[in-house]
Amino acid sequence: MPLTYFDHIAGTPPYPEVVETMLPYLKEHYGNPSSLHQVGKAAKVAVDQARTQVADLIGASAEEIYFTASGSEANNLAIKGVAQARQKKGRHIISSKIEHYSVLHPLKSLSRQGFEITYVPVDEQGIVDPKAVQAAIRPDTILVSIMLANNEVGAIQPIAQIGRITRDKEIYLHTDAVAAAGRIPINVAELGVDLLSLASDQFHGPQGVGALYARQGTRFLPHIEGGTQEGGKRAGSYNVAGIAGMGCAAELAGRDMPETSKKLTYLHEKLINGLEDKIGDIVITGHKSKRIPGHVSLCVKFIEGESMLLFLDMQGFAVASGSACTSLALKRSQVLEAIGIDAATANGSMVISLGKDNTAAEVDRFLEVLPPIVDRLRQMSPLYKQGS
Amino acid sequence: MPLTYFDHIAGTPPYPEVVETMLPYLKEHYGNPSSLHQVGKAAKVAVDQARTQVADLIGASAEEIYFTASGSEANNLAIKGVAQARQKKGRHIISSKIEHYSVLHPLKSLSRQGFEITYVPVDEQGIVDPKAVQAAIRPDTILVSIMLANNEVGAIQPIAQIGRITRDKEIYLHTDAVAAAGRIPINVAELGVDLLSLASDQFHGPQGVGALYARQGTRFLPHIEGGTQEGGKRAGSYNVAGIAGMGCAAELAGRDMPETSKKLTYLHEKLINGLEDKIGDIVITGHKSKRIPGHVSLCVKFIEGESMLLFLDMQGFAVASGSACTSLALKRSQVLEAIGIDAATANGSMVISLGKDNTAAEVDRFLEVLPPIVDRLRQMSPLYKQGS
Repeated sequence: MPLTYFDHIAGTPPYPEVVETMLPYLKEHYGNPSSLHQVGKAAKVAVDQARTQVADLIGASAEEIYFTASGSEANNLAIKGVAQARQKKGRHIISSKIEHYSVLHPLKSLSRQGFEITYVPVDEQGIVDPKAVQAAIRPDTILVSIMLANNEVGAIQPIAQIGRITRDKEIYLHTDAVAAAGRIPINVAELGVDLLSLASDQFHGPQGVGALYARQGTRFLPHIEGGTQEGGKRAGSYNVAGIAGMGCAAELAGRDMPETSKKLTYLHEKLINGLEDKIGDIVITGHKSKRIPGHVSLCVKFIEGESMLLFLDMQGFAVASGSACTSLALKRSQVLEAIGIDAATANGSMVISLGKDNTAAEVDRFLEVLPPIVDRLRQMSPLYKQGS
Repeated sequence: MPLTYFDHIAGTPPYPEVVETMLPYLKEHYGNPSSLHQVGKAAKVAVDQARTQVADLIGASAEEIYFTASGSEANNLAIKGVAQARQKKGRHIISSKIEHYSVLHPLKSLSRQGFEITYVPVDEQGIVDPKAVQAAIRPDTILVSIMLANNEVGAIQPIAQIGRITRDKEIYLHTDAVAAAGRIPINVAELGVDLLSLASDQFHGPQGVGALYARQGTRFLPHIEGGTQEGGKRAGSYNVAGIAGMGCAAELAGRDMPETSKKLTYLHEKLINGLEDKIGDIVITGHKSKRIPGHVSLCVKFIEGESMLLFLDMQGFAVASGSACTSLALKRSQVLEAIGIDAATANGSMVISLGKDNTAAEVDRFLEVLPPIVDRLRQMSPLYKQGS
């Protein structure tokens, strides 16, 4: 059976051009960019070019890009790096209840070290209110970290409005743009952010490469300490092939975004409308229009997302139940809790994330395949019999 | 001019089989191993296999391997992770003066947080005395971190002897085996280590992948926090292709080691003898026999290593002056200082690190090319005229 990949939020297939770009750095240009000889220099040229390509995707300068091995590492670097560098100024940080665990867990660690964290709530559509951020600001606030788009419910946050609040104060604004980059236009100046996290595998680049944007002059300490790579902000030998691949993907994602975004918005609207037509007792989570193109998140009442996922997998559809990063943990999602979904409903959560190569025919087939699976699972569910 | 790569300590060209192993995970098997559908599972299978292959290289079990993005990250994870997990037991750590910066800088950070670090010295050949480690142990010592082989002077350390000292005490032993793995046989049980760091690009695997071995039951906290990857010890989406490549490289390096090691030992002895014959006023640094196969380190008096490196580069030889990780910093090496090399002599440091594909003919040509470069640079050096 041909496989239909509807799980782009867990990672996207690299562009063929990305793989082609990487190959020479796995084969003949294997040098260490820190070396001074010609083998090292060939590698350094690739890293420099990728830095410019990644910067261009978000309207930044090349020297403001720090390569990491993942979006999670970029989030750790931003949060812990700023906290350590600025703790003499203050130890209060503002974040939200719908952040990724690679923001929430570092914040929890900082709170054990005496930092105070205010988590602003979100509304039922998963959107942070900038006024809540403003109200949470204290004289000792050093950092606000709110994601640009949520991976689980797809909701796009009003970062530019928050940026206008933090801009005139001495408060850094970090945004986790991992789920947003390559999917919606990003300009760091328009957003007013000081730090922004990216992951290559979210925009058809290789896995295991990420980047942190830090506006020039932003103070943060390194997280991985050691050699002088990345201006002393991130030690560790360069993943030259991966970085070159990320650069190529950033360029192509920027080029394709207007067209892809239009197509994916059409497809996700078609999918949401079809689901609402064909399946009763479902809740589409997240915001109707402020949503990542191609992203559909829902809870199907009276059944378990896990089971739906496995049945869909047998029918050739790869989708996610909740966040792939936590799917092995089988915990209730903090995001669904934050938007007021009760635990029973949250059990039936599913994320369908379309990508640039998906088609309307695939969406149609999905809309044929899912309803009988839901029926069948509900027939087996004691909850459904009570509820219906 | 054909290039002769004599800088394997800065990174090694991947085996062709490694690149072949990686390609499917860049192309068709792009899934996230944390996903539960078949695309994710194909990726998970690759990660699981690589974990076994890496474990086999060092006599460990698969579940004791934690993948990272570099040896530096593995060192950070070991040092900071153990310090945080065990600080209630004690806050004293023993290390040496010749460690890599990815050990030394985390230790410096810990010392700012109230940890006390004892740095044991090394002898003139760059070897730590196990008795010095024993003498440094205090009731509050929680960790000893001594590298297995030094990247700058190639000296192999008596880790097994140190392991016999720490084994019966409640002190963890960590060894940075980045420069050693794939070059000398490693068995974690024989060494008696609790934690051991590895980097794929040191044994003909891809760049940007590393691993930390942690004996079952070893307590350490994660460094990059977030998702539940790697048993919650290292968050961040998997670099599946890179990990698969590292696994393949580990297997091949283990297979080839007996033959390669013999050949490289022959070549480095030939090179050292040739250098001593043909160039006056040089100091071969490190230990004569306890040396990484293929590793030659020396200081050429009265000239700058930097200039030698650039002249050699023009003649088609890629070598290093000091450590590639710090070569852009142009600082005096802490390692050469520790073995008692004065600052002027350290200026002329060079590391020639041979790899499995280098030949005796290349060594011969190097021995023809270097002496006239040294002569020419010395003629230009005011120090040489005073000294000679």
